[in-house]
Amino acid sequence: MNKQRISIWGSTGSIGTQTLEVIREYPERFEIVTLAAYRNAEKIFRQAQKVKPQHVILTGDVDSAWKSRFEKVGIRYFSGPDALINSAQSGDEDMVVNGLVGAVGLVCTTKAIQAGVNIALANKEVLVMAGELIGRLLKNSHSRLIPVDSEHSAVYQCLQGERSESIRRIILTASGGPFRNRSLDELNHVTVEEALNHPNWDMGAKITIDSATMINKALEIIEARWLFNISPKQIEVMIHPQSILHSMVEFIDGSLKAQLSIPDMRVPIAYALSCPERWELPFGSLDTTKFHQLELIPPDMDRFPALKLAYQVLEAGGSAPAVLNGADEIAVQAFLEEEIGFMQITDCIREALNRHQKTDNPSLEQIVAADREARETVRDFIRSMK
Amino acid sequence: MNKQRISIWGSTGSIGTQTLEVIREYPERFEIVTLAAYRNAEKIFRQAQKVKPQHVILTGDVDSAWKSRFEKVGIRYFSGPDALINSAQSGDEDMVVNGLVGAVGLVCTTKAIQAGVNIALANKEVLVMAGELIGRLLKNSHSRLIPVDSEHSAVYQCLQGERSESIRRIILTASGGPFRNRSLDELNHVTVEEALNHPNWDMGAKITIDSATMINKALEIIEARWLFNISPKQIEVMIHPQSILHSMVEFIDGSLKAQLSIPDMRVPIAYALSCPERWELPFGSLDTTKFHQLELIPPDMDRFPALKLAYQVLEAGGSAPAVLNGADEIAVQAFLEEEIGFMQITDCIREALNRHQKTDNPSLEQIVAADREARETVRDFIRSMK
Repeated sequence: MNKQRISIWGSTGSIGTQTLEVIREYPERFEIVTLAAYRNAEKIFRQAQKVKPQHVILTGDVDSAWKSRFEKVGIRYFSGPDALINSAQSGDEDMVVNGLVGAVGLVCTTKAIQAGVNIALANKEVLVMAGELIGRLLKNSHSRLIPVDSEHSAVYQCLQGERSESIRRIILTASGGPFRNRSLDELNHVTVEEALNHPNWDMGAKITIDSATMINKALEIIEARWLFNISPKQIEVMIHPQSILHSMVEFIDGSLKAQLSIPDMRVPIAYALSCPERWELPFGSLDTTKFHQLELIPPDMDRFPALKLAYQVLEAGGSAPAVLNGADEIAVQAFLEEEIGFMQITDCIREALNRHQKTDNPSLEQIVAADREARETVRDFIRSMK
Repeated sequence: MNKQRISIWGSTGSIGTQTLEVIREYPERFEIVTLAAYRNAEKIFRQAQKVKPQHVILTGDVDSAWKSRFEKVGIRYFSGPDALINSAQSGDEDMVVNGLVGAVGLVCTTKAIQAGVNIALANKEVLVMAGELIGRLLKNSHSRLIPVDSEHSAVYQCLQGERSESIRRIILTASGGPFRNRSLDELNHVTVEEALNHPNWDMGAKITIDSATMINKALEIIEARWLFNISPKQIEVMIHPQSILHSMVEFIDGSLKAQLSIPDMRVPIAYALSCPERWELPFGSLDTTKFHQLELIPPDMDRFPALKLAYQVLEAGGSAPAVLNGADEIAVQAFLEEEIGFMQITDCIREALNRHQKTDNPSLEQIVAADREARETVRDFIRSMK
């Protein structure tokens, strides 16, 4: 069997470490080319000692002594923000698992696509910011984009063996987060600790807060629009508190397909690595004799205004989705640092969208500029509120 | 577009009339070769006037005057039990929709497979009686067997784009019929009228009674075993009273796929005709904002002993499944004629299985003989109870 040459971006994060857990089940199938992370040098060093990648990249500001430590164990080490872009450009691997968080993954993803590398994408912000542009790049490349988000993986799985013209609509499920049943007034007083306590999923801090505000679902609506090339009108959201049914596709004949599993990101990660095959996994299976009831409830758009924002920025198009994404990153950070309240996260995004002069058909540079501007706007707005 | 040349066996029955309703939506895609039924001459004559088949066949005992009535409208007419077998042998069509009820469809289905014709199979008794033999015939033929039963269509749809080695198990759902919540004592006093009143599906009398006893689900377990070539241990049943989730497949990676739709047989019929494409259908779609809860509950094997019988006859193998099927046909008829009580239907089957000397690797003739013997046994047994 030919080994799959694979790189993992964001290897020290939640998606990265779970990708390494999947790979540990099938070590004979993989050759690890690059592990890349931001600045957790200790952790990536331990990972590298185990999985022996050819290269390690840390994009953040790290003690230069690490270079020799890596080289002593026979691993080439690169640092700084350009190192990952250079690596992406080289097209050295068959597949990149992009588990980066936020806008930082955009440029290197475009480079990897241009180099013909397949992308297992957990870094949804790439499609949120630049979905149209990524679509164009994919058309001119052999690269395939395979979703890792559990919802999009579910849709992708349901679409295996189906034709795109058979799709009537996509129904993304949302757990509703920890505050599903809270009133608007209660939502105004949510603490950081409460928001970080997701009922079903164990994820990074940014995505956990995004789940609580449902901005995460807004990002997923935008992601689905580009990933499956369908109109925003064909994308719906349903609250499913059990997080077992990960999404559904309705076809033009009235049939729906749904994908279900335990809420464990290693399942969609493994599928992205194995598809169209599937590999036996030891991560537990759904006890179908126990679940008894699957609830599916329409969402309340008033208590969770984030969903409306998704359709608004898709309607606006151009650079608007990148503004939503950049504004959210700063607002979530400010919430985590207790500078703003929970419901002010969406206020910040709305403010950034209001102040933004939209660019149509933006270039990569214009998208990056819109992102930067949105972050500035939100920082200003937060300062002005104090 | 090339027209699909299609024949409908059992055209006056529930599956047959619904197949004609589907075809009426896409008349330009079909050319109807043969309409066949048992003896409802009036109804098949009306159907034939509308859809202009080349041939009409009535296998039962019908007034010979019908021949000239059909010929007057330019349709060739054949009658008698051999007419359908001859037609099947001719391989005149691309696809047969086999909507016959019971053992009667077995021989002509084998002939159509040998003639290389695709079969949309609603007549599950064919696979129940002779699954192994049909499997061998399919291996040596270009014929494809596509299930029409809603449960098996669901599994078939979930398996599109998947590999057979990826299957861990199949979960067939069962509405549980009208008596799902009745006690054993209450079940002993069920009337014919109550048993004919299915909560979700509008079907023929035989299958409606089989749903109430859950023998229908036993037949479906046996059907699934042969249709998907998997071990009986990999087939499970769950009670799903809403009849919306039609079945599920669990894969080796812990993912499950489910197919859902309104409970309307025209959906799986249309899929059998269109797959792997799908056609837009005007039969209504599932209002996902309304269903709220999908229940899935393990079945009670004591109140519904039929399920155990399925695994027993699959374990026994050979001619045993044909005995279960033949015995059930006579027992259901006796129940409909109020000769026996509701719970005695499974007693009759158990008696026939006990008295049967099993044949391994039975030929078609031996299967037909086992079926005939089982019917005799049940008739004797019923007489002896009086």
